[in-house]
Amino acid sequence: MPEDMTAPMGDCFDQIARDAVYRAMFTRRDVRSHFTSEAIDDEVLARLLLAAHHAPSVGFMQPWNFIVIRDAARREKVRDLFLAAREQELPEIEEERRALYRKLKLEGICESALNICITCDRQRSKASPLGRWHNPQMDLYSTVCAVQNFWLAARAEGVGVGWVSIIEAQALKDLLSIPEHVTPIAYLCVGRVSQFAPKPDLETQGWGQRLPLPELIMSETFCGQGETALKSTVARLKAVEAQAAK
Amino acid sequence: MPEDMTAPMGDCFDQIARDAVYRAMFTRRDVRSHFTSEAIDDEVLARLLLAAHHAPSVGFMQPWNFIVIRDAARREKVRDLFLAAREQELPEIEEERRALYRKLKLEGICESALNICITCDRQRSKASPLGRWHNPQMDLYSTVCAVQNFWLAARAEGVGVGWVSIIEAQALKDLLSIPEHVTPIAYLCVGRVSQFAPKPDLETQGWGQRLPLPELIMSETFCGQGETALKSTVARLKAVEAQAAK
Repeated sequence: MPEDMTAPMGDCFDQIARDAVYRAMFTRRDVRSHFTSEAIDDEVLARLLLAAHHAPSVGFMQPWNFIVIRDAARREKVRDLFLAAREQELPEIEEERRALYRKLKLEGICESALNICITCDRQRSKASPLGRWHNPQMDLYSTVCAVQNFWLAARAEGVGVGWVSIIEAQALKDLLSIPEHVTPIAYLCVGRVSQFAPKPDLETQGWGQRLPLPELIMSETFCGQGETALKSTVARLKAVEAQAAK
Repeated sequence: MPEDMTAPMGDCFDQIARDAVYRAMFTRRDVRSHFTSEAIDDEVLARLLLAAHHAPSVGFMQPWNFIVIRDAARREKVRDLFLAAREQELPEIEEERRALYRKLKLEGICESALNICITCDRQRSKASPLGRWHNPQMDLYSTVCAVQNFWLAARAEGVGVGWVSIIEAQALKDLLSIPEHVTPIAYLCVGRVSQFAPKPDLETQGWGQRLPLPELIMSETFCGQGETALKSTVARLKAVEAQAAK
């Protein structure tokens, strides 16, 4: 891992290294159902946090903190927040999809090895907020980049991550003693898994389908036609899905 | 690349593959100064977009679009927006840092091979907004994950990416005919580079320093002490920086 990466590195990745980066992206999953009870080594967790810490941040602000939550009783309280929030969200869902919504497994708070809450300190660069005057949300976005680095590094380490977004933020802040000026961005369930599913759970269960990428590409302006050659090239590509474990 | 990834894949990455994922993260840069005029193949750009499209998204919503901007005149207008916005932001910066702020190169809009604006369609899953009732910003965060996938894949392809956040959003929406219900998340400069700098520009130029990661880790609650073993392990890790090109 990082300690071993002492060989001089040029700027181009070879084919094997490039494939590895794509593989992490294509086979990463939002894990809810497949956590095992196996512990995660501090060595592995430390590398995941280092990966998150190397995310880009506006004005090099690094607004993130990482709260590691292992205590079972606290996690049960977080799960209660999820259960209450799910009941609140249900009426927002189309009536004909509510039965499916109720069946979806949307969190692994208690059965994963540990939880991590990644937060954004809104005041960390308040004296010189480079790059945030026009978009004050940029610090939140930087923190999301840290989440995504964590998630991809975890996939490469064989560690599953699930992002629980159905939680009332203020209730979570109270439970984790998060101060007013700090925003919880992601509540993550983290643990070893029995498998990485071949497709996203929501696709397998019929909640949604992968959209055709060429239709999402525009030229010069929103809805601008053009980029025909690029779209044809995109249409020929095929991401390889994860192979389900035996 | 994806086409070649046809071998069965288990769930664990070997050491070489894991190192590649970390290397992409540790040597990724927010590129402003080192763009060359070399074009980017559609094959490469298509893979970057496919990587972005495989980001996680709340409720499998995939709220993103990708506007590819190549036209020189349009890009000059975007750069004018940046220049105006920088003047607006300057008074927000601490007085003693304004001279340094003015010297920083914060965009490569015109000299990169092309620009891409990644947007978020707020209405894409409006009928059944799974996971967004409590946090309506989750769709924005999903789009940021797509940006980060794009950025890391670009690093693996030897393509530089710079995120320009100093632009007034409504002016950019007008220029790119982005409708009301769509939010521009990231305006990216994308192109081949002469080098990936060994460290972030803002670090090299003295704007900021990498924060000590152990101090950002908390246990159970915000400011919670503990996780001593994890923090010691983190302190021993060392990310490898990019080697500057000759």
